[in-house]
Amino acid sequence: MASNDKTPAHVVIVGAGFAGLYAARRLARAPVRVTVLDRRNHHLFQPLLYQVATAGLAPGEIAAPIRHVLRGHPRTQVLLADVRGIDLDRQAVKYDGGEIEYDYLLLATGARHSYFGHPEWEPLAPGLKTLEDATEIRHRILLAYEAAERTDDPVIRQALLDFVVVGAGPTGVELAGAIAEIARRTLRRNFRNIDPAASRVFLVEAGKRVLPSFPEDLGLRAEAVLRRMGVEVQLGAAVEEVTSSGVRVAGEFLPARTVLWAAGVTASPLGAEIPGVRDRVGRVRVAADLTVEGHPEVSLAGDMALVVDEAGSPLPGIAPVAIQEGVCAAENILRAIAGRERRPFHYRDRGVLATIGRSQAVARIGRVHLHGFVAWAAWLLVHIMYLIGFGNRVAVLWRWTLAYITFERADRLITRGPGAAA
Amino acid sequence: MASNDKTPAHVVIVGAGFAGLYAARRLARAPVRVTVLDRRNHHLFQPLLYQVATAGLAPGEIAAPIRHVLRGHPRTQVLLADVRGIDLDRQAVKYDGGEIEYDYLLLATGARHSYFGHPEWEPLAPGLKTLEDATEIRHRILLAYEAAERTDDPVIRQALLDFVVVGAGPTGVELAGAIAEIARRTLRRNFRNIDPAASRVFLVEAGKRVLPSFPEDLGLRAEAVLRRMGVEVQLGAAVEEVTSSGVRVAGEFLPARTVLWAAGVTASPLGAEIPGVRDRVGRVRVAADLTVEGHPEVSLAGDMALVVDEAGSPLPGIAPVAIQEGVCAAENILRAIAGRERRPFHYRDRGVLATIGRSQAVARIGRVHLHGFVAWAAWLLVHIMYLIGFGNRVAVLWRWTLAYITFERADRLITRGPGAAA
Repeated sequence: MASNDKTPAHVVIVGAGFAGLYAARRLARAPVRVTVLDRRNHHLFQPLLYQVATAGLAPGEIAAPIRHVLRGHPRTQVLLADVRGIDLDRQAVKYDGGEIEYDYLLLATGARHSYFGHPEWEPLAPGLKTLEDATEIRHRILLAYEAAERTDDPVIRQALLDFVVVGAGPTGVELAGAIAEIARRTLRRNFRNIDPAASRVFLVEAGKRVLPSFPEDLGLRAEAVLRRMGVEVQLGAAVEEVTSSGVRVAGEFLPARTVLWAAGVTASPLGAEIPGVRDRVGRVRVAADLTVEGHPEVSLAGDMALVVDEAGSPLPGIAPVAIQEGVCAAENILRAIAGRERRPFHYRDRGVLATIGRSQAVARIGRVHLHGFVAWAAWLLVHIMYLIGFGNRVAVLWRWTLAYITFERADRLITRGPGAAA
Repeated sequence: MASNDKTPAHVVIVGAGFAGLYAARRLARAPVRVTVLDRRNHHLFQPLLYQVATAGLAPGEIAAPIRHVLRGHPRTQVLLADVRGIDLDRQAVKYDGGEIEYDYLLLATGARHSYFGHPEWEPLAPGLKTLEDATEIRHRILLAYEAAERTDDPVIRQALLDFVVVGAGPTGVELAGAIAEIARRTLRRNFRNIDPAASRVFLVEAGKRVLPSFPEDLGLRAEAVLRRMGVEVQLGAAVEEVTSSGVRVAGEFLPARTVLWAAGVTASPLGAEIPGVRDRVGRVRVAADLTVEGHPEVSLAGDMALVVDEAGSPLPGIAPVAIQEGVCAAENILRAIAGRERRPFHYRDRGVLATIGRSQAVARIGRVHLHGFVAWAAWLLVHIMYLIGFGNRVAVLWRWTLAYITFERADRLITRGPGAAA
């Protein structure tokens, strides 16, 4: 079974996001036993989650069953399990159905959105991290138009047609752009009492510019494109209050019934089980080789790990960072098992991409800044390439081709009663 | 706007299933005003619902937004509304957001599954009528395997791997066949502690044969194919009790954790608002022209209407009957508006089809009986032809092609926590 005659080491991976799944794939062919624990049965391709939220893609098109992805590896086991805690001394992970011992542990349970000390805003302004979040946001957007079509009150109607997206990072920009397209294009001729184009989309950001993690020229470019698409961009505008009838931003109340949250994240609560220094959003500082201080058998990767680059800035919570960290952590575990020295993590920054709408994106690829159709084509290519599962890739390409031709969004589905938004 | 200079008549259609949607399409180009009310925003292609339940298709692939289907017709309005009652005297439909008056009313709200006086069985043995039902059944099937992989108890493990489908009509046959394929093919190599092929699938039927609404030779053929696929068919076996740990059938207890209900239907409760004779399952007897006795302005179509053929037998609750009734009811409304005589409904029986599994189906087309690959190809052709929405058609064809080649099912998604079945 293994290349040596001892019992193979047991590596437990908690979380099958980008970091955990790529680590599992790296370990799958090595002479170790691997157990992957996740609360969900699927790996989620989060960069396309906003398309599920805006009815462009179906949930199944950006998700793949974890055990299907790893089915070819007999020493790798997948357990659907809700991890409750870590016993670092006994080297055991406690989950809802028992506990499991490890020789090496990789924690990669990611992050959730955060409401800056206002958890009561969460039900009023949902964030976007899971498929459930995405279908919830989709329901709210579609039900707002349905309710607007039904009401006779012009004030309520406009409030139903107005959308506020909080936070102008990539997710906020993508959501705002997609909602503007739905209003201007997709829903045209679908209603009789309302004109969907009367919708207003507000993108509010506490910081000074759109896409703060991008080079400044690309942020300005994105802002200009958004304004051309009809999105009302408000910068330096902090959210002060969220209620069921709207949101107060920089002293002014916007009476919008649909408020979406793309403003902040907080690291997975499982990080609290790990000793060490934490940053403002709860990420745990790890050593250069991604292990936890005092526990070389425990590694962290992805959005819950605080890793800094050469300049001392924390690496952003994006898929390429998580993938590279997952692979590095896996390779270091194999080195430790082989009695070799672990290597420090070094992030190979290939660039960043954000899409705004039809034929519109911004991208930094290496040192080259791109925008417009070229950036959009690059965005499309990269996302299709990294999408896991051959069937999904073709299905998504087909949806996008059709959407590009028809302006239609293929998955405008509400699967619950009309009561919620009515 | 209309071809006469009076205010155009207002036709209200409740329910956008096959009967309601085809009626709306027939009326859309006529000089009448049409309002379609439905609790859901989508028309559902019910004949393929079992494929969503067994993870072969995504919900959005067999559903189309009603207002999208009808978007090209300016005199047709769609309202997402939960209809609460009918005031026949005032000619008004009451819904959750108000009421709406009609000149002509078409009721087509279909049927739900029925538990023969045991409503307490519903949460234990879900039926299959809506997308929510289908995702619930899908979750139960997939979570049963996940829980079986986790347990150490061999008795519980087998109970988790055993499936009971109650009712051997087309839905029951399709479900049982698909579950057997999932166990034998799709999940192969996905698990480490269990062998999915150790699953047993029981198809229990109180009547004397499989597919009672089909010609006898085709029912026997379907039964033989099911047995060859490993399905244990039990005929003349009435369900006496359903509990959370299994089902008692003809005196014997089957300890299966997953029980699915495909045994009986009952007409929509809205039928209770209509005077007239009802049959055992609550369908309302209508006149030959599909109108309600004493209320020529009210018509019924689809699964809630009791319509008999020349021999006096009730027409079955299948899509072709609903479609033809919907079109006939719409044409009779137009005849009444034009002052012409209404015509009696006459069902053009083109046949019946049921699929069992890969390359396996039975079909009666006119008087010709088909089985095996030819019947399966006919089934595939008919279902693709009738599936509404060009995008959906191509997506479904693609999924099926891929599934045929790979034995994989594309939409194995659980979108809630693991707690429920653990």
